Amino acid sequence: MNAINPTLVPIQLGERSYSIYIGEGLLGRSSTWDKLPNAPMALIVTNVSVAPLYGEQLKDALKQKYSRVELLCLPDGETFKTFETLNLIFDQLLGSGADRKTILFALGGGVIGDMTGFAAACFMRGVPFVQVPTTLLAQVDSSVGGKTAINHPSGKNMIGAFYQPELVVCDLDTLQTLPTRELSAGLAEIIKYGPIADMSFMQWIEDNLELLITKDVGALAYAVQRSCEIKASVVGVDEKEGGLRAILNFGHTFGHAIEAGLGFGVWLHGEAVGCGMVMAAHLSHKLGLVDEAFVKRLTTLIERAGLPVKGPKLGAQEYIEHMRVDKKAQAGHIRFVLINAPGQAQVMGAEDTLVAQVIDQCCA
Amino acid sequence: MNAINPTLVPIQLGERSYSIYIGEGLLGRSSTWDKLPNAPMALIVTNVSVAPLYGEQLKDALKQKYSRVELLCLPDGETFKTFETLNLIFDQLLGSGADRKTILFALGGGVIGDMTGFAAACFMRGVPFVQVPTTLLAQVDSSVGGKTAINHPSGKNMIGAFYQPELVVCDLDTLQTLPTRELSAGLAEIIKYGPIADMSFMQWIEDNLELLITKDVGALAYAVQRSCEIKASVVGVDEKEGGLRAILNFGHTFGHAIEAGLGFGVWLHGEAVGCGMVMAAHLSHKLGLVDEAFVKRLTTLIERAGLPVKGPKLGAQEYIEHMRVDKKAQAGHIRFVLINAPGQAQVMGAEDTLVAQVIDQCCA
Repeated sequence: MNAINPTLVPIQLGERSYSIYIGEGLLGRSSTWDKLPNAPMALIVTNVSVAPLYGEQLKDALKQKYSRVELLCLPDGETFKTFETLNLIFDQLLGSGADRKTILFALGGGVIGDMTGFAAACFMRGVPFVQVPTTLLAQVDSSVGGKTAINHPSGKNMIGAFYQPELVVCDLDTLQTLPTRELSAGLAEIIKYGPIADMSFMQWIEDNLELLITKDVGALAYAVQRSCEIKASVVGVDEKEGGLRAILNFGHTFGHAIEAGLGFGVWLHGEAVGCGMVMAAHLSHKLGLVDEAFVKRLTTLIERAGLPVKGPKLGAQEYIEHMRVDKKAQAGHIRFVLINAPGQAQVMGAEDTLVAQVIDQCCA
Repeated sequence: MNAINPTLVPIQLGERSYSIYIGEGLLGRSSTWDKLPNAPMALIVTNVSVAPLYGEQLKDALKQKYSRVELLCLPDGETFKTFETLNLIFDQLLGSGADRKTILFALGGGVIGDMTGFAAACFMRGVPFVQVPTTLLAQVDSSVGGKTAINHPSGKNMIGAFYQPELVVCDLDTLQTLPTRELSAGLAEIIKYGPIADMSFMQWIEDNLELLITKDVGALAYAVQRSCEIKASVVGVDEKEGGLRAILNFGHTFGHAIEAGLGFGVWLHGEAVGCGMVMAAHLSHKLGLVDEAFVKRLTTLIERAGLPVKGPKLGAQEYIEHMRVDKKAQAGHIRFVLINAPGQAQVMGAEDTLVAQVIDQCCA
């Protein structure tokens, strides 16, 4: 395992542009944080699983730049992505005399990143924040592009904001402590980029999956970088999901239904997306967009990544009800991200009866 | 009382530009709403005091354009500007199958406008909304400029977003049902524009105060229009309060301390601002910026408008503690909007001892 060179992936969004910094040993290095805006106080928001591993390391590094660094430790898991937990961040900020220049650091996975970003978007109508994703899923997807949110009992990420961070720091070292199940969940979002945008990347994932699963740092570095490049190119043309950006939601329409149907946190988001991609591929095939071989190829890869390829038996009706609450739905009509041709996605509707057939076929 | 011609005040904010439409009988006229974006559903958010007066009238007019119009009636008052009430809006939206194109209408005063605007900013990361202010305060200040928020127990408007409406409709007819106390509260924000920006407008208010208090529609029309023009010119150069926009907070630093100190809702926001302007004028005088005659002139006008000019006796220390939580504070240093010279404001700090003297002098 050789040391890899750090890379910077830029996100071009005019005055809201920023960089994704990918490499080893970044978190504890004070130079990583050098160019951030000055502030009288920095607040690290993290959770009970991540704090013991990286909390003090980040705090020490930030103390080189900020005279006051506080750490708020939240409970861990999707079930805590709520108003109640969000309020804990506001309570801490106001209790500490935070002001409009206070800078927040989201140290953790997608839940911490989404909630801390939303807190930053709302606190005093907006303070700066930095994403420090420590899970593979957060590094390749959720920390990039400025989508922030909390869940509502009726649906995932229903309350939120488009709010861009100052910087995203993907320290590959943090992936070494990631549980296997979380690693697989991250692989789902990496695999996603193949069918929607880059089949040669899909081929690369197929060829290097064992290296990724065994946490080879070179393989992880490339997977994170290529995923961020694809995401950056999509977000750069459609920041607020007027159109194109929706393709990043491949597998997410079915996936969100699984998460909401089972109760948030029973399946990991990445697991639901993995299975959701299989279902969306089947639907694409039923509509004559892709052949059966493609569905099989994608299913095999998702299964090899340690992800579920059969959905929970909630019944087609319950899936469809949950999907109607999806943010892509229009006037009650569910809209799916489907594969037009391998490497190319498009958002479109489908008949309920066809969708129900796919659900019945894909659930065990 | 002659019928007045409706006027349009534009707010220039690039792609977020919109108009403030001021006139009589606007609310129930379907042509008022003609050019708004189409949507499968419109939700009117209002409160128990306003709903019986204007709820059905607006609903009927909107039905000409939107096939589904729902109405949500919230409790009335600043004490309800909370997360819990905000959640009622989200519950209604999600219970009704609202989607990203759903348009919200804020029918009411500042509390309804701030909360509905914030709900629109966050619901599915942003849906369109329209301000239909029915109080004088909301027509001349809070509905214009895109500041949305809810309160936190530690401070007013601490959680919010800059989020611009599609349109602001100030129907002067709604002011005829306004209780006297609410009318006075609105006059506070109108008077504010004089000292910070336009002393000839202050002179006009002094000359026409009796007409305003007796709800002369011509006088109200001019006061609303001129206030909106001044606010539009400030917001047009500094949408997100990087600097200049803070002058609109004249009287608000002391005022927020009164509101928080007494408990939100005991004094109306406009009452606290009225008294806060007196305190800020005294502080300006203590710093040698304006003469005593100016302080007296402003105090007289505020008193004539039916507003309190003596603050509640909370003690200087409590005032100062509440003011440290103000959004303008930096690193624990309170910053005040002070009058540099009549018609000109600036944001600056002041010694705690001086501030305490002003508080002692101005509280009874």
